[in-house]
Amino acid sequence: MKTKCYKLNQKIKGIFIKHGMSRIHAKISSNAIIQSELFGLPSHGLSRLKMYCERIKRKLINIKPKIKIKNISQSISHIDANNSIGFVAANIGIKKAIKNAQKTGFGLVGIKNSGHYGLSFFYAEQAVKKNLMVWCFTNAPPAIAPYGARKALFGTNPICFGFPTGNKIPFIFDMSTSMINRGIIRRAEKLGLKIPDGVALDKNGKPTNNPKKAIKGVQLPIAQFKGSGLAWMVDIVAGLLTGANHGGNVKDPFDNLTKPQNVGHLFIVIKPSIFIGKNYLSQIKKNINNVKRLPKSNKIKRILYPGEKKYMNYKKNLKNGIDIPKNILEEINKLNAFK
Amino acid sequence: MKTKCYKLNQKIKGIFIKHGMSRIHAKISSNAIIQSELFGLPSHGLSRLKMYCERIKRKLINIKPKIKIKNISQSISHIDANNSIGFVAANIGIKKAIKNAQKTGFGLVGIKNSGHYGLSFFYAEQAVKKNLMVWCFTNAPPAIAPYGARKALFGTNPICFGFPTGNKIPFIFDMSTSMINRGIIRRAEKLGLKIPDGVALDKNGKPTNNPKKAIKGVQLPIAQFKGSGLAWMVDIVAGLLTGANHGGNVKDPFDNLTKPQNVGHLFIVIKPSIFIGKNYLSQIKKNINNVKRLPKSNKIKRILYPGEKKYMNYKKNLKNGIDIPKNILEEINKLNAFK
Repeated sequence: MKTKCYKLNQKIKGIFIKHGMSRIHAKISSNAIIQSELFGLPSHGLSRLKMYCERIKRKLINIKPKIKIKNISQSISHIDANNSIGFVAANIGIKKAIKNAQKTGFGLVGIKNSGHYGLSFFYAEQAVKKNLMVWCFTNAPPAIAPYGARKALFGTNPICFGFPTGNKIPFIFDMSTSMINRGIIRRAEKLGLKIPDGVALDKNGKPTNNPKKAIKGVQLPIAQFKGSGLAWMVDIVAGLLTGANHGGNVKDPFDNLTKPQNVGHLFIVIKPSIFIGKNYLSQIKKNINNVKRLPKSNKIKRILYPGEKKYMNYKKNLKNGIDIPKNILEEINKLNAFK
Repeated sequence: MKTKCYKLNQKIKGIFIKHGMSRIHAKISSNAIIQSELFGLPSHGLSRLKMYCERIKRKLINIKPKIKIKNISQSISHIDANNSIGFVAANIGIKKAIKNAQKTGFGLVGIKNSGHYGLSFFYAEQAVKKNLMVWCFTNAPPAIAPYGARKALFGTNPICFGFPTGNKIPFIFDMSTSMINRGIIRRAEKLGLKIPDGVALDKNGKPTNNPKKAIKGVQLPIAQFKGSGLAWMVDIVAGLLTGANHGGNVKDPFDNLTKPQNVGHLFIVIKPSIFIGKNYLSQIKKNINNVKRLPKSNKIKRILYPGEKKYMNYKKNLKNGIDIPKNILEEINKLNAFK
């Protein structure tokens, strides 16, 4: 049975409010969760709700955070999120980076003491909708073994890049540096599903399709030392640079129920007109057209730019509603009954 | 027979001077070429010298460029390289980005009308040696087919990231977004070598180990749509944003002998102390140590951070000299005889 997302959003917002969150923070958080479902990425959606609520109950997520913004210059700001839920910290952060970029052509915001912020896409989109170019980086708890090591240390540390296209579908490229994102494995564990070949090893270093074994083992980075290097880069710029945890010290939100995560984020926002003025719009259209009219490989109907598939999922899921697996629905109902 | 690099550098510099270049530009260019050889990356070294000289003779590389630097703000500068050799344009660009960052915490420099600049490492190292964090991006002529296409359009578009470590070996991660860099294929073609499995397809879409066929076909990006997306991102930020060629229009320096390349570069330089002060040095040491002391996979003696292997090659090759394949040596001697 399909569930319509508007009602679901109200319900999730209600759950966060029941757990003590302010209306505005609850709205930001439920929007982020529902957007992941609409984009067709349930790994970052409802399957995480119970974890967020659990961390709120244990005061590992601070529902009354005193978020401090320090302006280093007109372009650069530093945010101490005071262990707020990641969605709220990142939402404040991207808005600040956008303002700085609108003022000076360039905005750089580093955030520490934050948590898992869902999809980078959610923040990149805000900048792109204001006709700005954007990079979003966040680190994450250990999942990937560095190249040459047998133990996980880097997170799946995504890289997200957005550029305005002048039409309603922005160019937003959002990739984890692991073969698949950890949320897919967590969700497969919850739903008793297998994970694909070639994405993870068990704790003895053997390939596995079992999500439980993968979580105790290591995830594989993309392209061996290249993926490992990209994950390391993200750990440095999002974690080390901002004063957040890094080097394997970000706490796992599911497994560590004693300490706040202290995830770090870095947002870089740039006016795409700084060098070539408004021509950037005609140029990006030309660029995308050049790619789209290439001869296609046999398996493909249409060449898409990053963001198009998510947008199509969004439209479809908004209209038809989404499927919620039975045990996740039960979790939601239990959380909703919480007093 | 090994050749010592000091003497070789003088010879290469002399060749550029014979071709009409100023002493200072010849020195920058020969240093960049020799450094690639010392790092153990001959794909970006001597095997390209004949191509550079050919382009100078045909006035596709401007040896008396009027390079214009426009300051958009104290942090942001735009450079029109006037078809200078890429080494010179990029060298001016990184120095400007470093200055801007030293002044304001952050430097952004976009460069258009440039050419192939060799290894990004060469420029990243300059920033890191000044205790700055750096990203270098450059686009390149078509080599990779976008995900879903059968024809090359993106370059091998490298991503390079550097961070100071406080010791003599900087952290510099420099990767092409293709399985291997194009220089390796060009050099294999020149030397009659095979290329590895799984890195390229011929023009009919079949896997090939033949460098000639690979050049007429397509190179494969890392990690399928992820590598394709990263290459697209680099094309946008280095090419489109800066006003250089992009979207498949960068000219191939070997194959196109009628037009300047109009490659674009983007350098982002950031003070690593902006958020956490001088602690960044103790933190990067801790970060690297955490990785290095992980249990190693069986094949590996020591876990290295990006940049370490290049540094070891450098030391060894500086001491012992380098091997120059016979037909590349003949090319150099012919170029040296040029009057």
